[in-house]
Amino acid sequence: MTHDLLALTEQLCAVPSVSGAEAAIADLVEARLRGCGAPLQVDRIGANVVARTQLGRDRRIVLGGHLDTVPPNGNEVPHRKGDVLHGLGTADMKGGLAVLLALADDLVAAQPRFDVTLVLYDGEEVADEHNGLRRLFAEAPDLVQGDLAIMLEPTGGWIEAGCQGTIHVRATFDGVRAHSARPWMGKNAIHRAAPLLERCASFDAATVDVDSLAYRESLQVVRIEGGIANNVVPDRCTVVLNRRYAPSRPLEAAVAEVVTFCRDAGADDVEVLNASMAAPPNLMHPLIAEIIGVYDLPVRPKLGWTDVARFAAHGIPACNFGPGDPELAHTADERVERVHLDACLALLEAFLGIGEPPPARAR
Amino acid sequence: MTHDLLALTEQLCAVPSVSGAEAAIADLVEARLRGCGAPLQVDRIGANVVARTQLGRDRRIVLGGHLDTVPPNGNEVPHRKGDVLHGLGTADMKGGLAVLLALADDLVAAQPRFDVTLVLYDGEEVADEHNGLRRLFAEAPDLVQGDLAIMLEPTGGWIEAGCQGTIHVRATFDGVRAHSARPWMGKNAIHRAAPLLERCASFDAATVDVDSLAYRESLQVVRIEGGIANNVVPDRCTVVLNRRYAPSRPLEAAVAEVVTFCRDAGADDVEVLNASMAAPPNLMHPLIAEIIGVYDLPVRPKLGWTDVARFAAHGIPACNFGPGDPELAHTADERVERVHLDACLALLEAFLGIGEPPPARAR
Repeated sequence: MTHDLLALTEQLCAVPSVSGAEAAIADLVEARLRGCGAPLQVDRIGANVVARTQLGRDRRIVLGGHLDTVPPNGNEVPHRKGDVLHGLGTADMKGGLAVLLALADDLVAAQPRFDVTLVLYDGEEVADEHNGLRRLFAEAPDLVQGDLAIMLEPTGGWIEAGCQGTIHVRATFDGVRAHSARPWMGKNAIHRAAPLLERCASFDAATVDVDSLAYRESLQVVRIEGGIANNVVPDRCTVVLNRRYAPSRPLEAAVAEVVTFCRDAGADDVEVLNASMAAPPNLMHPLIAEIIGVYDLPVRPKLGWTDVARFAAHGIPACNFGPGDPELAHTADERVERVHLDACLALLEAFLGIGEPPPARAR
Repeated sequence: MTHDLLALTEQLCAVPSVSGAEAAIADLVEARLRGCGAPLQVDRIGANVVARTQLGRDRRIVLGGHLDTVPPNGNEVPHRKGDVLHGLGTADMKGGLAVLLALADDLVAAQPRFDVTLVLYDGEEVADEHNGLRRLFAEAPDLVQGDLAIMLEPTGGWIEAGCQGTIHVRATFDGVRAHSARPWMGKNAIHRAAPLLERCASFDAATVDVDSLAYRESLQVVRIEGGIANNVVPDRCTVVLNRRYAPSRPLEAAVAEVVTFCRDAGADDVEVLNASMAAPPNLMHPLIAEIIGVYDLPVRPKLGWTDVARFAAHGIPACNFGPGDPELAHTADERVERVHLDACLALLEAFLGIGEPPPARAR
């Protein structure tokens, strides 16, 4: 079957799905997957939709994508320029979802060499407690089992191996209220946060080698809030930090690092809002080695956290491979190109044994 | 007439009146002032109540107080400990309002040597555009004319002379959004605000002599806000600064100073939210000199902005004199003592010529 993947991506982008409001897009993909009929068996839990073949194959490949987007950035209306689709979610990751839906169509009449599970889930762009894949692993782990998981996060056609861990902490600075004309009677909580901001602004994040891949870490203030009234010395300032760390050390060590960093800058309280482990690159795993080797895919480390870490934590090797430039994710310039959508679908179908092998990459 | 000023203050404190919600307390004071009858003539405009004698005296004394309070700080329920009343608004400035209401009662049967205007108004603790006295000067200037204005702001029984000016500016730092795992693709607006916070935290505010009074200036960050989502490098951070400056220089110069300060710290935009002039001490004015000299009152500079500056701007000399410790205003420990309420009422009645002269201050 030939697919207009750009048009399908545009349809998906036309349904807003900022985290927390994924019901409409879940309805859309559920209806479409149910329409495929046998051999796809479709389950839905909340705004999470899972479609599985049950062909009795020895091994099962899980292909995953999240339904939600970050908030719009003046780019909520998708628009095409030739064979490029611009707008919120085009790259992260409705282009990947379009590939999954096309794959579902093509699986129906085919004889793939693996059983295949498609997982489309909500709540990936927000705190881990909202993550739909987390819910599936907790409530229906059989639905998401497999021998290899591929997340269709935007990777620009590369294999992005493993992923960095991500930690959010909220540092709180206390103060003492006073009339702002007599600040010496109080203590300014926002002023007390200045050293933490300064240390974050000048933080020299490391680049860490794991399996010869260079994971570039980061530390960013992503939120700050303080102040009660314009005439009052504020008694509270909260700062949310996001730490991204390489899969070179355990989660506990990375959490301890960032908590200490905040404490050293004078924070009175440091609350860990969420902490997600990193995933190792796993380049020597047979299925990952095969997909890289047979199709001669370029490999680089995944800097953003993705649910490959969740699969890894459940003992399922996983990598990222999807259409769209990851550096454009969460920016106003987010976009995806038709040629990358087509290439991603072709490669996955070849790997699953239901399509022509794609041409080898130019060297 | 003898008054239980502590009980009256407690009644007033039992009616919440955070800025913007003064209607109920305005109703209460209006009803009470109308109940006094002749010679008090009562006018109400919005949540502003003005009661005036019309006795044909040569000179008129305006006595003023604001009805609103800052937001509560766990102290919204007034409670007494012996002859001390604790709670929001006790000092700033429902104690002063209680003195004004008692004075109204006593004016009725008396022959004061001045005509007297009592002005009780809303919106003093917030941006100037909400200030009820501003509205009265704009809409009904005859109601607030006089030869001397005394604001019953808490001064601890001192004459607090003049007042410092106050300026609020909002400094905005721009950035460029990006995924927080690839912050080098964006620019972090909160990180960019770090130098401004640091400069405010370490700012060495001057103490300026005017008429031998030492005005202690200040500069405080009173609000900060930034961040769009926990995975996004923020593209905007806003910081609100409050500058308090001595009556040694004109408003324009003080505004220029603080705008330059923010620009020098890298702010992309600086918006002046409000800017209120300072008021000179005016210690040589005959009526101010009289009240200080005859009752041997101690004098110090007023550090907070008060509406004496508005009276001064309209050519009416003004000073602050009221019950309660100004250093407790806007703090959780705000309180007022019965002895100070009684002393304030006694002094004002003596000055107006309707009471016994109070005993001279111990030297």
